[in-house]
Amino acid sequence: MTDSAILHRLAATIEARKSADPVASYVARLLHEGQDKILRKVSEEAVEILLASKEGDKQHITRETADLWFHCLVLLAHHDLGPDDVLDELRRREGTSGIDEKALRKAE
Amino acid sequence: MTDSAILHRLAATIEARKSADPVASYVARLLHEGQDKILRKVSEEAVEILLASKEGDKQHITRETADLWFHCLVLLAHHDLGPDDVLDELRRREGTSGIDEKALRKAE
Amino acid sequence: MTDSAILHRLAATIEARKSADPVASYVARLLHEGQDKILRKVSEEAVEILLASKEGDKQHITRETADLWFHCLVLLAHHDLGPDDVLDELRRREGTSGIDEKALRKAE
Amino acid sequence: MTDSAILHRLAATIEARKSADPVASYVARLLHEGQDKILRKVSEEAVEILLASKEGDKQHITRETADLWFHCLVLLAHHDLGPDDVLDELRRREGTSGIDEKALRKAE
Repeated sequence: MTDSAILHRLAATIEARKSADPVASYVARLLHEGQDKILRKVSEEAVEILLASKEGDKQHITRETADLWFHCLVLLAHHDLGPDDVLDELRRREGTSGIDEKALRKAE
Repeated sequence: MTDSAILHRLAATIEARKSADPVASYVARLLHEGQDKILRKVSEEAVEILLASKEGDKQHITRETADLWFHCLVLLAHHDLGPDDVLDELRRREGTSGIDEKALRKAE
Repeated sequence: MTDSAILHRLAATIEARKSADPVASYVARLLHEGQDKILRKVSEEAVEILLASKEGDKQHITRETADLWFHCLVLLAHHDLGPDDVLDELRRREGTSGIDEKALRKAE
Repeated sequence: MTDSAILHRLAATIEARKSADPVASYVARLLHEGQDKILRKVSEEAVEILLASKEGDKQHITRETADLWFHCLVLLAHHDLGPDDVLDELRRREGTSGIDEKALRKAE
């Protein structure tokens, strides 16, 4: 099993939840409540990463980053996007001139 | 090439930047400036995702999510963690009882 | 009644809650749960302002800004600070060379 | 001079900047760049408060809270609102049943 498999399996699960009962599934409920609710969760998880990082607890940082990436997958699904779009974008940047140079150009 | 390869290649590049010249590399500079600077970038990218999502531009959403995940990799590297820690965590949650149930339990 | 009166009355109420029962009072509970809980609320209200602003509903923007300022007062109280510290800081910046110039200098 | 005077003077200055040259004034530039730019600043200052709070430096916390409130005034001005709207809202909550009870109701 490759690492990417988990991102794709999660994305497939989230996609399937689009037609599931909001009462029975956390993801179905999130998707049903809509964009603002998903954005609140993405923002919340970013804050949790910040607090976990200041705390310095590696397990906590790992868990909160997993939460953030997971809710990003839900937001992507809301927009009919998926992990491949993001991974392709990362690959594209790397391909041209190195991620550092690209990021630097963006920051300026 | 699997999708995960890009996350691991990026992580390897970031790791290599720990000993690079902060003037020559965006990532080396970020790592050199330290935790708070990286956290500011993670927070900033989360806000950009929110603004892009409200705008509804799929390419913009994809780019900002790529930025966020990239800066998460930098933060993970700062804590001597990597993408496998996060992907393993996502896999662990899925394994037990389904990501939905796990996430629901966490939310409560 | 001056406008400042409400900020000071709120600050006095919050201060009094430091010794109140966490079960009976929302503010006492916040102060009891500690810094991270208060920071989560401050961050959450900032996100709510963003969502309300994009929605363009003036009453909603007003309410969320009131929520944010209120939770800032709770955070200030946690650090044994109060609204006068913040208002004095704003006055100090204005006094010297105009708020614009000061803010500009800071931004650079 | 009452404390509220500074909030109103700042709001008047910001209002006057709506017709000022974006090159000459930080606030005029912010207002000119528009809502998303102002929201980025509000979000950024909320993150700075969080970092300052974890650092525990009272002067830093005070300065960042002043920055946040100032940028809230800019956002209010963008929506043709002002500090009185927010202060009135805070007063209204207090008037009815005590800020604690009101906030608690909202949180539920």
